[in-house]
Amino acid sequence: MFESAELGHTIDKETYAREVPKLREALLDAQFDLAQKKNFQVIILIGGVDGAGRGEMVSLLNEWMDPRHIQSNGMGEPTDEEAQRPRMWRYWRALPPKGKIGIFLGSWYTWPFLQWVFKETTDEEFDEALDAAVRFEKMLADEGALIIKFWMHLSKDQQKKRLKTLEKDPQTRWRVSKRDWEHFKIHDRFRLCAERSIRHTSTAEAPWIIVDGSDQRYRSLTVGKVVVEALRKRLDAKGDKPAKPNVSPLPPSIDKRNVLRSLDMSQGFTKKQYAKQLEKYQEQLAQFARSPKFRKKGVIAVFEGNDAAGKGGSVRRVTGALDPRLYGIIPIAAPTEEERAQPYLWRFWRHVPLKGRLLIFDRSWYGRVLVERVEGYCAEADWMRAYLEINDFEQQLTDAGYVMAKFWLAISKDEQLKRFKEREKVGFKRFKITEEDWRNRKKWDAYERAICDMVDRTSSDIAPWTLVEANNKYFARIKVLKTLCERIEEAL
Amino acid sequence: MFESAELGHTIDKETYAREVPKLREALLDAQFDLAQKKNFQVIILIGGVDGAGRGEMVSLLNEWMDPRHIQSNGMGEPTDEEAQRPRMWRYWRALPPKGKIGIFLGSWYTWPFLQWVFKETTDEEFDEALDAAVRFEKMLADEGALIIKFWMHLSKDQQKKRLKTLEKDPQTRWRVSKRDWEHFKIHDRFRLCAERSIRHTSTAEAPWIIVDGSDQRYRSLTVGKVVVEALRKRLDAKGDKPAKPNVSPLPPSIDKRNVLRSLDMSQGFTKKQYAKQLEKYQEQLAQFARSPKFRKKGVIAVFEGNDAAGKGGSVRRVTGALDPRLYGIIPIAAPTEEERAQPYLWRFWRHVPLKGRLLIFDRSWYGRVLVERVEGYCAEADWMRAYLEINDFEQQLTDAGYVMAKFWLAISKDEQLKRFKEREKVGFKRFKITEEDWRNRKKWDAYERAICDMVDRTSSDIAPWTLVEANNKYFARIKVLKTLCERIEEAL
Repeated sequence: MFESAELGHTIDKETYAREVPKLREALLDAQFDLAQKKNFQVIILIGGVDGAGRGEMVSLLNEWMDPRHIQSNGMGEPTDEEAQRPRMWRYWRALPPKGKIGIFLGSWYTWPFLQWVFKETTDEEFDEALDAAVRFEKMLADEGALIIKFWMHLSKDQQKKRLKTLEKDPQTRWRVSKRDWEHFKIHDRFRLCAERSIRHTSTAEAPWIIVDGSDQRYRSLTVGKVVVEALRKRLDAKGDKPAKPNVSPLPPSIDKRNVLRSLDMSQGFTKKQYAKQLEKYQEQLAQFARSPKFRKKGVIAVFEGNDAAGKGGSVRRVTGALDPRLYGIIPIAAPTEEERAQPYLWRFWRHVPLKGRLLIFDRSWYGRVLVERVEGYCAEADWMRAYLEINDFEQQLTDAGYVMAKFWLAISKDEQLKRFKEREKVGFKRFKITEEDWRNRKKWDAYERAICDMVDRTSSDIAPWTLVEANNKYFARIKVLKTLCERIEEAL
Repeated sequence: MFESAELGHTIDKETYAREVPKLREALLDAQFDLAQKKNFQVIILIGGVDGAGRGEMVSLLNEWMDPRHIQSNGMGEPTDEEAQRPRMWRYWRALPPKGKIGIFLGSWYTWPFLQWVFKETTDEEFDEALDAAVRFEKMLADEGALIIKFWMHLSKDQQKKRLKTLEKDPQTRWRVSKRDWEHFKIHDRFRLCAERSIRHTSTAEAPWIIVDGSDQRYRSLTVGKVVVEALRKRLDAKGDKPAKPNVSPLPPSIDKRNVLRSLDMSQGFTKKQYAKQLEKYQEQLAQFARSPKFRKKGVIAVFEGNDAAGKGGSVRRVTGALDPRLYGIIPIAAPTEEERAQPYLWRFWRHVPLKGRLLIFDRSWYGRVLVERVEGYCAEADWMRAYLEINDFEQQLTDAGYVMAKFWLAISKDEQLKRFKEREKVGFKRFKITEEDWRNRKKWDAYERAICDMVDRTSSDIAPWTLVEANNKYFARIKVLKTLCERIEEAL
């Protein structure tokens, strides 16, 4: 794997001096076009052996290009806020927007890599972390990001030589830390780990590029040229995004039976029954939220449902039980400019709460497989991959200790009509009904199909969907509260 | 001060039942208009005595209105990331964007208030914190925000009665904590503190509204009505913002002498001198950044200057000395949609770094008093108040332990012309010169005036401006590095 990188490539001073100005011009040109077009972001990972010039390379790229459009990320120890959230939160947080270049010196590989090298994890855990990296990069690539991953390599002899050279020069001595020598001692295990990582995560979208790190001029020119070629290729390609893969069709629905139609909509409570149950479950929820264990957990509740199914009312019965310090509501509307410049899930990742809180998403990431699918706002390949991405997202949330609860509030078509008409009559409910609601209603069947697919593909043990029969509002509110209590109770 | 609030106001059940639907309709109407127009944000503070129904009030406002456009903020203990930054960072972070309502249960008053009550601060420190609150609210109001501050009051007897009632009912018992009874014991000191706060911070823009908290129906209806009236008044007012105050003119410049023209532009270094000095100061900077004390400090460096003065080159000589993990560059371009929906300084507050890092702003908040002033992008009253707001911002940064360094890179008009022409010739510098640069050049005198005013009004001991004679690039780069080293050395 490292054969070519150990041949001792060098570039002489004259060639370097001749090549660099041309390279800089090409880099700046490409970067300028990227900043103008803003149609994708560039993510550059610089990994490799200590002493192979990773830090210098980042500085050099900043020097060669316009640093105003580069975000360099060190990614040392996670902060407290980062440590509380899923492991990938800090990388989502650091993603460059479209039109910019993000350089990661530490990346999603760093911690899994070091943990395996120092034998804190098993092979299986390491592979699982690498799988997660592949999924993350696949999502980025599908979203249009250009990913360039460099591995700066040195053989054991070269590394020793390099560290000694650095130490000799008073100007560079500081670059060599104790940790570098410690890492040198286990060079062989590092190498094994690098091989394993590169083998596992060199995908078509994001292959590793192994660079001989022994000669400063050679490695700098190599990295620079790879960056400029990759950028140029994407900038000059027709169309803004890579071609969409072919998508296998979902199974057709050939009878009338589906999870929505199988709901028993006749279930209901009288006002008196409701009041009693409401008291019971609101108190239970309030108690859970006040328990010391809750402070180390987080709850993420997703509310989706037919228009006029009573999402708002149910949400208020949940929040009504809680101290306002303990909950938050994130209403999901059209994405902002900053959100549009990022991968789809970015606008949800940014809201992942600290522990000890219940966060309610009023509409959610499921918009991708509901409204965006039905209205054709995104390509089929995009909403098809969303199922996997969403499952992955929710897995990461639950792995980090959050409790997931997802509610679909379902009403019948007749009941919806009744409620629409009522809303148009009652003054303070008037704002709740818009042209769009009437338009959506016309696509009832397409939505029904999308909802059933969503449930089939994203309801899981860790993040189950709860279908809520909501023709009777009392029943719906109690079912939501009760389910939420049960989910939390299991977790505490 | 609390006379009216201790009269024992009550509202009977029937009146309440009759009034609430009307109130809700009016609230929803106003909220809907606000969400449509998005021309200002609403900031509601709910302070007051324990047991006076603050939490319930927040829940009720969420219930009455559309919670999707409300952000309720508890503001308990600051997180680690919050604790590292200036005290106000967490409130900036929680500000609602235009079109939304932010409700603060804990606010910028909470900690200063409690610290004074428990005698951890002196009267003077408390007053200073209140002054800071007034300045913050004035800025918000000047930016167009609607601020409504409620103080929910109870007399000592009422508080005792209320806490006992809450404790008796199993449904509300949890609301009464040990802390509530502890606070009750020092009711008189709380009251004194409330009086002092209210007296000090009831301004024309943001007066406190004292509400008798003893009767649930009375206080709910009062708060609801105040909110709806305030909202309606602003929504129905002509124009998007409150009228601008009259602005006193700045002193005219009546001779040719100013800080820029007094610079000795003949200063320079030869290439050899430069190389030696560069080595010296880059090494010094690198050493500072690696010292353990630096981890508890932060450095914020601002780079402003004439077009083509060599900001980029100077920035690169600074970053070139540093491990990329230790610095960040924030290029300031046009604000994004999310930034435009916030007060001016929000987009800089969001970048305030964690400790142990050097953050470079390539252009900065000084845009307000430079380009925005000269090009007329904002009203005179807005850039005039910016001097105060900026000084306040920088004071907060230095109080929190950040080192501030601000550089103005100055070149002469002739030198600029020479560089513009060069840039047009050299391929990889071509992107650096735009139509805008030529346009700005035509306004040289207006910019000169704005720069001199900026220096006079915002250069201070805590955050001095360094004017850098930049006709000779070598000289400029060394002066920047040297100054930065001196600033950091003083602080370590």
